[in-house]
Amino acid sequence: MEGLWKGIIEPPLSGRNSKPRTVGITMLIDKGLSPMETENLLENTAPYIDFLKLTFGTAALYQADVLKRKLEIAAHQNVVVYPGGTFFEIAYWQSKIAPFFSKLTELGFKWVEISDGTIQLSPAQRRQVISMALQTGFKVITEVGKKDPEKQPDELSLIKMIKNDLETGVSWVIIEARESGQGIGIFDSQGGVIEEKLNCFKEGVPQEKIIWEAPLKKQQVKLINEFGTNVNLGNIPPGEALALEALRLGFRSDTWRVG
Amino acid sequence: MEGLWKGIIEPPLSGRNSKPRTVGITMLIDKGLSPMETENLLENTAPYIDFLKLTFGTAALYQADVLKRKLEIAAHQNVVVYPGGTFFEIAYWQSKIAPFFSKLTELGFKWVEISDGTIQLSPAQRRQVISMALQTGFKVITEVGKKDPEKQPDELSLIKMIKNDLETGVSWVIIEARESGQGIGIFDSQGGVIEEKLNCFKEGVPQEKIIWEAPLKKQQVKLINEFGTNVNLGNIPPGEALALEALRLGFRSDTWRVG
Amino acid sequence: MEGLWKGIIEPPLSGRNSKPRTVGITMLIDKGLSPMETENLLENTAPYIDFLKLTFGTAALYQADVLKRKLEIAAHQNVVVYPGGTFFEIAYWQSKIAPFFSKLTELGFKWVEISDGTIQLSPAQRRQVISMALQTGFKVITEVGKKDPEKQPDELSLIKMIKNDLETGVSWVIIEARESGQGIGIFDSQGGVIEEKLNCFKEGVPQEKIIWEAPLKKQQVKLINEFGTNVNLGNIPPGEALALEALRLGFRSDTWRVG
Repeated sequence: MEGLWKGIIEPPLSGRNSKPRTVGITMLIDKGLSPMETENLLENTAPYIDFLKLTFGTAALYQADVLKRKLEIAAHQNVVVYPGGTFFEIAYWQSKIAPFFSKLTELGFKWVEISDGTIQLSPAQRRQVISMALQTGFKVITEVGKKDPEKQPDELSLIKMIKNDLETGVSWVIIEARESGQGIGIFDSQGGVIEEKLNCFKEGVPQEKIIWEAPLKKQQVKLINEFGTNVNLGNIPPGEALALEALRLGFRSDTWRVG
Repeated sequence: MEGLWKGIIEPPLSGRNSKPRTVGITMLIDKGLSPMETENLLENTAPYIDFLKLTFGTAALYQADVLKRKLEIAAHQNVVVYPGGTFFEIAYWQSKIAPFFSKLTELGFKWVEISDGTIQLSPAQRRQVISMALQTGFKVITEVGKKDPEKQPDELSLIKMIKNDLETGVSWVIIEARESGQGIGIFDSQGGVIEEKLNCFKEGVPQEKIIWEAPLKKQQVKLINEFGTNVNLGNIPPGEALALEALRLGFRSDTWRVG
Repeated sequence: MEGLWKGIIEPPLSGRNSKPRTVGITMLIDKGLSPMETENLLENTAPYIDFLKLTFGTAALYQADVLKRKLEIAAHQNVVVYPGGTFFEIAYWQSKIAPFFSKLTELGFKWVEISDGTIQLSPAQRRQVISMALQTGFKVITEVGKKDPEKQPDELSLIKMIKNDLETGVSWVIIEARESGQGIGIFDSQGGVIEEKLNCFKEGVPQEKIIWEAPLKKQQVKLINEFGTNVNLGNIPPGEALALEALRLGFRSDTWRVG
């Protein structure tokens, strides 16, 4: 809101952090934007985007030169690109963590996501692999929660895991909601927030270290109204980047409280 | 349909108006297309698009040079870009209408939308601000209907408001359906048309002056089958522009009446 | 998976065919991508895409030079563009098949889709028009199934039609599911697979000659888990091209079988 409308229109919600920021993160779910699509997207949304997650194992499907150009374009706009947790899990499952980290470094990635959405990691294994990533020089985001809702741990277990991860040195912890945001984590089968589950995460974990996957607008509205303009949100569809920023700033009726 | 297929294929629905047109308007909901995305979109859809609405308050989120280039690209393709009604409402609520109109003029906007989807405007206030916009040199589109369905006036009140707006000199009146098109205006919670509500708008208002927000395909189909190829439609997702034109021309089974 | 990750990560699902391929086809539903959008899309997805279908009658809505550039861009990436069946049906219904085929040839199309989703074709008429297309020099894809579920033939009739088409010389037969994939063909109103209907198609028809329209992710997952990595899939939204390839290769939890 600097410049163009300064002195004329004020955002109805105030206090939004600017980049670089440690609170108020927006992470987009990137299902394969090409370098040109990335450049076009960031042309007017870069100030509002912190991370592009190459979701699932899509990082495996780029050709070398295409990926290189994409990373350069994002870096030029101060947007971090990182590979999704499933790709890490496959590397772990194939016992290839060392060469995996090594290749990521060579490709220019500076952040990794560590998760056990599909595989099983004991607390010790989880701590070990996080430490290994940190020692290799990566900044680390972890994710808690299972892809299969039937295998989902209870909230107390997840909170314990979040605390352990933060103590081990990760930057943020994502709460899993997949691409759909339905029937998973704190969301019911229609994507509505389950209040009891949400409440569990309100105490005992530092909110500024949580990134909520919230692909649906009604979820973004609920979390902004609950935690404020600078709640960390992830798995945002790229085409929603500016719409989300409008929600964060109260430029949409859903978060604009009139009188 | 001139040129390429002339003399070979005729559109199953005939009578579609070409640009510039006053009936048969297509207005897209634009949630933040960058200049390059706008150029790419319009490359083969410009003949089918009349308006790009910078929806919600997203007009606030562009950087000056980016917005300037976007407006130039659209103007070059004879497509009008205008800021959504919520942005006007925030300016009104902040008592900044004069500098708001002034800045819009400076930026090159020629159309504004005036609405009270979130704020309250008395009939006199509504007339006053429309008149002010017209006197400033804008062409005006208004919108009737509330964002919050619980605050929605009855159909007779809306029709009265439409008539008043038209008498005051606005070009078209939009009937609100938001981005979702669900549980709002003439649409039920599944996005289906509520026949009784639709019927209320069939008499007493000039159809050529109404723009129906109809983001969902089944709504577009229903309204085309009800009012014909040149019904004015709005809040069309940009990726649906060509698909909508196919519906308007009968190039899709839903509007093509065989034998 | 050649190159970038070779020797480090193996796809959890193996055996995926590379282009050019006759099994493992991915056909995207193209609702009007402009030449630049096509180029941007294919920049990093071309190896994963076989066909772009100009769906409904959208092929009618391009300007000549725009269509020409689009076809050139796709051809350069070894991706085939072809007009949707509805466009053929309109030409047939207007008794313009000969000039229609002639114009398509002139424009550079090498494939056509023949269907009777909206019109009626007797078995003899169907065979005749397929033969005519083949004799004109086209490769032919047909489609079975009606746009209107109430007019849908039973599975045995569809299977008979598939066999007839293949005997007449078509390359593949598509099983209709429209853009929505809901309440049509083998899919229920929620887009779930109706097992009995699916089972009907498991025997008596060569799977490698079937292209399943499967616009929704859960449909793609089900069909990959049922028929393997190289099941032929169609009506994939363009933005899902890389996500689908991730599913085909087991780079997503839904198709990755751990342990």
